[in-house]
Amino acid sequence: MSAQPASSLQAEVNRLRLQLESFQVEDGSKPIAIGDYLLARLEQLKVTSMFGVPGDFNLGFLDLVEDHPTIDWVGNCNELNAAYAADGYARVKEHSIGLFGVGELSAINGIAGAFAERVPVLHIAGVPSTIQQKTKPLLHHTLGDGRYDAYSKASENFTISQANILDKDTAAAEIDRILTDCITRARPVYLTLPTNMVFEKISSERLKIPLSRLPPPNDPEVEAFVLDDIVKLVEESADDVIILVDACAIRHDAREEVNELILKTGYPVYSAPMGKTAVSENYERYGGIYVGSISHPDIKEKVESAKLILSVGCLKSDFNTANFTYSMCFHSDHTKVQYAGFPGIGMKELLPLLTARLQSCSAAARKIPVPDFTAVVPKEDNDIISQAWLWPTMGKFFKPKDVIIAETGTSSFGIVDIPLPEKSIFVSQILWGSIGWTVGSTLGAALAARDLGLNRTILFIGDGSLQLTVQELSVMLRHGLKPIIFVLNNSGYTIERFLHGKERKYNDISNWNWTGLLGVLGDAAGTLSQSYTVKTKDELEALLATPSFAEAGKMQLVEMMMPKHDAPRALVQQAELSGKTNAYVAI
Amino acid sequence: MSAQPASSLQAEVNRLRLQLESFQVEDGSKPIAIGDYLLARLEQLKVTSMFGVPGDFNLGFLDLVEDHPTIDWVGNCNELNAAYAADGYARVKEHSIGLFGVGELSAINGIAGAFAERVPVLHIAGVPSTIQQKTKPLLHHTLGDGRYDAYSKASENFTISQANILDKDTAAAEIDRILTDCITRARPVYLTLPTNMVFEKISSERLKIPLSRLPPPNDPEVEAFVLDDIVKLVEESADDVIILVDACAIRHDAREEVNELILKTGYPVYSAPMGKTAVSENYERYGGIYVGSISHPDIKEKVESAKLILSVGCLKSDFNTANFTYSMCFHSDHTKVQYAGFPGIGMKELLPLLTARLQSCSAAARKIPVPDFTAVVPKEDNDIISQAWLWPTMGKFFKPKDVIIAETGTSSFGIVDIPLPEKSIFVSQILWGSIGWTVGSTLGAALAARDLGLNRTILFIGDGSLQLTVQELSVMLRHGLKPIIFVLNNSGYTIERFLHGKERKYNDISNWNWTGLLGVLGDAAGTLSQSYTVKTKDELEALLATPSFAEAGKMQLVEMMMPKHDAPRALVQQAELSGKTNAYVAI
Repeated sequence: MSAQPASSLQAEVNRLRLQLESFQVEDGSKPIAIGDYLLARLEQLKVTSMFGVPGDFNLGFLDLVEDHPTIDWVGNCNELNAAYAADGYARVKEHSIGLFGVGELSAINGIAGAFAERVPVLHIAGVPSTIQQKTKPLLHHTLGDGRYDAYSKASENFTISQANILDKDTAAAEIDRILTDCITRARPVYLTLPTNMVFEKISSERLKIPLSRLPPPNDPEVEAFVLDDIVKLVEESADDVIILVDACAIRHDAREEVNELILKTGYPVYSAPMGKTAVSENYERYGGIYVGSISHPDIKEKVESAKLILSVGCLKSDFNTANFTYSMCFHSDHTKVQYAGFPGIGMKELLPLLTARLQSCSAAARKIPVPDFTAVVPKEDNDIISQAWLWPTMGKFFKPKDVIIAETGTSSFGIVDIPLPEKSIFVSQILWGSIGWTVGSTLGAALAARDLGLNRTILFIGDGSLQLTVQELSVMLRHGLKPIIFVLNNSGYTIERFLHGKERKYNDISNWNWTGLLGVLGDAAGTLSQSYTVKTKDELEALLATPSFAEAGKMQLVEMMMPKHDAPRALVQQAELSGKTNAYVAI
Repeated sequence: MSAQPASSLQAEVNRLRLQLESFQVEDGSKPIAIGDYLLARLEQLKVTSMFGVPGDFNLGFLDLVEDHPTIDWVGNCNELNAAYAADGYARVKEHSIGLFGVGELSAINGIAGAFAERVPVLHIAGVPSTIQQKTKPLLHHTLGDGRYDAYSKASENFTISQANILDKDTAAAEIDRILTDCITRARPVYLTLPTNMVFEKISSERLKIPLSRLPPPNDPEVEAFVLDDIVKLVEESADDVIILVDACAIRHDAREEVNELILKTGYPVYSAPMGKTAVSENYERYGGIYVGSISHPDIKEKVESAKLILSVGCLKSDFNTANFTYSMCFHSDHTKVQYAGFPGIGMKELLPLLTARLQSCSAAARKIPVPDFTAVVPKEDNDIISQAWLWPTMGKFFKPKDVIIAETGTSSFGIVDIPLPEKSIFVSQILWGSIGWTVGSTLGAALAARDLGLNRTILFIGDGSLQLTVQELSVMLRHGLKPIIFVLNNSGYTIERFLHGKERKYNDISNWNWTGLLGVLGDAAGTLSQSYTVKTKDELEALLATPSFAEAGKMQLVEMMMPKHDAPRALVQQAELSGKTNAYVAI
């Protein structure tokens, strides 16, 4: 039986102290406004940006945000974009959360995406006063039928915890409860803040105890049983083992533990698309991206023929894995060994113990062959910026610590096949797949990257997708952010053309003057940004090789003219698969 | 006891025949695909435009839409804008409905607004096949936890009826059921169409029976009782009666009946903001807009001192009426006489009978004084385009049959005080009040106006609001629409500044190059549109007087430079009221 690590025990101590705190009588500590209490907790979680749109019922709270020394108000152009930005921020700023406060329903798709993809986001909704919530007058912004709870009911479908601050005596404990859920379970939570509660004074005593990010400690007895079970299975598979890493390894702070496991055992490691960049893509034992039946044949064969798969933090989906079976999974709060589930046994503590036990297999493990994960720029006898040529070319442009964001569609499918540099961060909404999501997300990601001292933020997005959420480019300009935005101008919704309606008009869009866009959205003087159009391979290569471009000293938008009916290999295959399971019976 | 009108009886006959039809065995009629059945019903309802964004699960159905001879696919830039467009379309195209088909959640705020404001809108969501709905694989665009019903659960809060087409035998009846609810109750309904059902063949027999728009006939006995009651109250009030008209008179096809009542009795008539243009604003017995405590003092005194108010189709809200008490109301499906409610007694049948009974009071009624509803352009000793000057000036610019759309904020508050011309249509989202709503709505309204042969579509919107949904201007260009868009450039969210945070940065926005916008969004050649900036009264007056401008031969955008801290009278008063009921306790 192993001893609990100190960090885990400290977290448990804090949790218990906070529980006790709820029963304490009034203390002598300095009173604090409920709104400020919330902000103090968010500051402890290293939140530096709050996204949103001012609305009638959150203006008082925004006073506190605007006056806060370390949390900035990022005024977004609309609510959905704000939610997307909070999501992007949280993905890049690991160990923190995304924060947005806006009206309600326009943001709900943003919350749902964060729910599906396990991103810790706090949605603060300013709501009418507690008195109005009781008397239910026919206010504007309501449904006119007295159902003040319809919004929170809708939100309950897409958040794991909700709190409505109706009582100052329980306000601090309620705030702590939902924030703890948010950080330990890495999913969105929902807080409604009535206008008259924002400035109510409460005790600040609880703030001395930090919130616990770690889940409750594993039960040592069960943990030992699980370990034995796994080690036995590893031995039975005669070291024919691979490790597959997915998104939850990132979301649940298990990067370090996963990397230890990988480096010390030497088993071949692969990544699911949403786990891309969780481990180094340049590591010699890294075999690339496994996407089920649309994987590169080499990868597919190696992964599927392994006797045992140690799957870490998997988040299943058709686009993320392209099939639906796994043998063994490590999660934040449970472990599955073949058919047996072990609730409460989390990977953060389990993986180091497993690493210690498996280290001895290292010599054998290192003999298991791993395909090379490289991307070669194909030689093509034309000028066209093809999908096959574009992504490997881009692979050479990326630098360590870049934040690389790919919109659902040709971009996300194209980029998964390309190895990304050391400590770069890949951001994409593979499972939820809302088009337009990356624009808001890039805003949040770029702010987080600035906080963390990362390198460039680079977005790839199609013209159709960019039209959904385009206004948020203006907010990037306003905040002095310098992302590089590659717009794949291929005349419409290419991903949909591959799914259905290749020549249909409904997949067409208006052609915008993309290089004029930033000038209109806030950079009239042309000092904050630069835009380009590239039509050929040579033009793009020349641009990428220009030092002033690559240094990203201002915001840059590159329109790339690309063929309408070209798509990356993986997308073509995925579309064929989706088409089969999702067939329209022909007339 | 009165005889039922023939139209009402015919509607009842059709309803009953459709009920019977559900029990009929298979007939010899021509089979039709379920998707085409739906489109045939929509064609019968005179729907000509379908708004939306193509998505993985609706592409098959879009084939049918694209191939349909009278229903056009209007590809929107995003889902929320599409929902707004459907709403705007339905408001202008009375006797029809708005139609949009898109993914799901991004549109939910648009549905909620239509719900609150009683707009008949059909939301068609393409969903995974019936097989996948049973086996629940982890598809993209899902939450990853097998809850395929989370979206429809969220939608249930904001629609009055839902149908999921799982079975071809009940498909037609289900479609008819939700469409009937939509048109008789004037609220949004929700239809999910699994991919594999779109092309399933069913009988077309039911299509021969039109759907009934009219609610079930009133019970003649109860109706007679209600009539006697009302007439008695009118007599008791010694003809000190006024009529107050609101939105539901428009939504429930009772315009004609209301106008008969008004013209034949001669009682003074006032309108609530959302009922504006339900009756002619130039009628000699029309006294203007009643907005509760923020009404013009003259109007307030006249309305509130009346012994009896006949309120037709009222839709209560703080912004719509600014107070919360009424004595008597006529609704589509019930009537309230003082404290007594009469369910099932609808105004469409009741009002003509009431008109007949009250006609004899006409001589006395015409003696009740009515304030003049006029707007005088104030003389101001400066060049500034002030709110006080702007709206009366615009009043002179409007023409009969114009569709006039005002964004929530300074625009909607400013315009209510101005009489609008004969047969013009006023569109505003007074109750729900989502900023940005008018942009999508203008697209829908302009398409409906084109169908109906109306005059110009004119939008007033602030710079902050336009940023939320700006991309939809591009769709207007693409469809050759020619709205005039007045952008009130007053450096941010002026309505919020009046509510709270007058000098706060969170109410600031980026300043865009508004006159460059249409060039970027699809009119690079400058042939489809024209943009202007006006900074002074003289410049605006000169522009309004230019025939080529007033003729609206192309899409036009006018940026009007206006002071940041100026607001119409009604908004200033409303903000004071809201501030009181919605106070943040000061620190």
